[in-house]
Amino acid sequence: MTHRRIVLASRPVGMPRPEDFRIEPDRPAEPGPGEFLLENHILSMDPAIRGFLDDRPSYLPPVAIGETVRGMTLGRVTKSRRADLPEGSYVRALAGWAEMSLLGDALGLERFDPAPGIKLESYMGALGPSGLTAWIGLNEIGRITPGDTVVISAAAGAVGSVAGQIARISGCRVVGLAGSPEKQKRLIELGYHAAIDYRAEPDLDAALRAACPDGIDVYFDNVGGATLERMLPLMREHGRVVICGMIEQYNDADHPYGVKTLWQLVVKRITMRGFLTYDHGDRLAEASAALDQWVRSGALLPTETVYEGLERAPEAFIDLMSGRTMGKTLVRIRN
Amino acid sequence: MTHRRIVLASRPVGMPRPEDFRIEPDRPAEPGPGEFLLENHILSMDPAIRGFLDDRPSYLPPVAIGETVRGMTLGRVTKSRRADLPEGSYVRALAGWAEMSLLGDALGLERFDPAPGIKLESYMGALGPSGLTAWIGLNEIGRITPGDTVVISAAAGAVGSVAGQIARISGCRVVGLAGSPEKQKRLIELGYHAAIDYRAEPDLDAALRAACPDGIDVYFDNVGGATLERMLPLMREHGRVVICGMIEQYNDADHPYGVKTLWQLVVKRITMRGFLTYDHGDRLAEASAALDQWVRSGALLPTETVYEGLERAPEAFIDLMSGRTMGKTLVRIRN
Repeated sequence: MTHRRIVLASRPVGMPRPEDFRIEPDRPAEPGPGEFLLENHILSMDPAIRGFLDDRPSYLPPVAIGETVRGMTLGRVTKSRRADLPEGSYVRALAGWAEMSLLGDALGLERFDPAPGIKLESYMGALGPSGLTAWIGLNEIGRITPGDTVVISAAAGAVGSVAGQIARISGCRVVGLAGSPEKQKRLIELGYHAAIDYRAEPDLDAALRAACPDGIDVYFDNVGGATLERMLPLMREHGRVVICGMIEQYNDADHPYGVKTLWQLVVKRITMRGFLTYDHGDRLAEASAALDQWVRSGALLPTETVYEGLERAPEAFIDLMSGRTMGKTLVRIRN
Repeated sequence: MTHRRIVLASRPVGMPRPEDFRIEPDRPAEPGPGEFLLENHILSMDPAIRGFLDDRPSYLPPVAIGETVRGMTLGRVTKSRRADLPEGSYVRALAGWAEMSLLGDALGLERFDPAPGIKLESYMGALGPSGLTAWIGLNEIGRITPGDTVVISAAAGAVGSVAGQIARISGCRVVGLAGSPEKQKRLIELGYHAAIDYRAEPDLDAALRAACPDGIDVYFDNVGGATLERMLPLMREHGRVVICGMIEQYNDADHPYGVKTLWQLVVKRITMRGFLTYDHGDRLAEASAALDQWVRSGALLPTETVYEGLERAPEAFIDLMSGRTMGKTLVRIRN
């Protein structure tokens, strides 16, 4: 049976364009021993995908021209030669923009049981990798404690929109930075104590100082670059900087911004740490249980922007990278 | 009785010049309740002093024009109204470039008992703040373990020359960067496994890769700037960057270097952390005991450059900031 997939047609320069991608027929092979066939329902749009599209060493090799674009997917197992993944089970895995994926030991592979009354989308956002990343970043890396002032950049984004809510539920004062009046409004709805529209704010330092009169204990950074540079002098002593992402850099990785305020690391005795969620496997069950409970109780509101149809994946990804989406950006390719 | 002190005559621009300092008579007041008079024997020349001379907020206020230059000293208590510091006791404290200092609760105040057979100078270097900083930086911040590859910048400096020896004694592979053939030679004498003269090396990246074939587990950074930027891509996964100092920046703090490789913090899940030794009071006794034993056994060789006479303090400080001294730079002002 013929399926469809989206391949990389050409390497993007700066912001990706629709013509950097191409949809084409696909005929996945039958599963061999230890393999399984995944019917993908939802594609996760993540800034990390932009990194895979550059021909540059990172924690994974680049996607080759003509290869399926790599990304996290949520799907249902339809054929399996793995005893631990019977047909019909739901999994998340690092697979690709395709209707079907043949997988073995995929990175980030996790089986989960969708609960009644919770949208499948949420398992890709607040109850999935974005939520887990927010939880691990705040607790394992940022070591938040009640009363901390936590600042979050890209605060209306997939990870930021969950991180702000976790920090608020955990008793922190939460300040978010986002790039439009709509996002700023959404942050307040999500329970942020203060929200700054960094594009509209004439004096960002003054706005941050007003929102954080005692300084910043934890900066949860999704953007890097000039925003990170600006934040370091506002940190409190023994502050923690959680380096979750650097989206400011992704579209132009050949000309990264030079951060000039690192001396503040000594002045304030700051710890700055990068992380990948799946390095912290020992905390993921705890994180999942907490997120699940908060979503069920209504304390944590999942936020998603959903596109319909595999062919819209490039558009969804470009919108994400342009800052036009809110919360988790997803593509539903099967109902 | 009249004594002498050195005051700040003008704020240095870039590298300090002799005329930025002035020697003048001094008549310290009598100790009030809780105070004591310290007869200074040895002044410690530290890059941190350069920061105190700029009119810029840091972890301490700037030295005012006409005020005694601030710095660590080692001295003997001559008059005391503190029960815990009887006359005749030896202390180290953040005092100043003066023959006598009137002190109360001075920062970094520590009483110690000089042991027979160990030079007083060593209590200001390998057995003093520099040695403690090296030990805390490697163990508390860098969390070295045997087999780690440890790279140290300003490796022939006060802290670096001790740090390299501690790392070697602790079972690490130690690579040092220094700025002259004499320093490079000294590093090998101190037991560094490899030493790189960064000024002479035409391809520093290639030299570092050859010296660290498995990558770098711990980078103990005394210089910051372009050297830090260069090191991050060479780190191993879960590497630690110990931010001890940033001497590359001190002479021109208005134009700090922008570090462009921070994305490596995510790629390699690096922890980068600044510290001040005296924040780690709970480990200092352990650190002191270890350093003392290593110096007595001859496993650790103290390295010092000593100038004689209070009037030579500006010269000693300028030589330090120009990279012309080796090991700990000290001024002995009383025999």
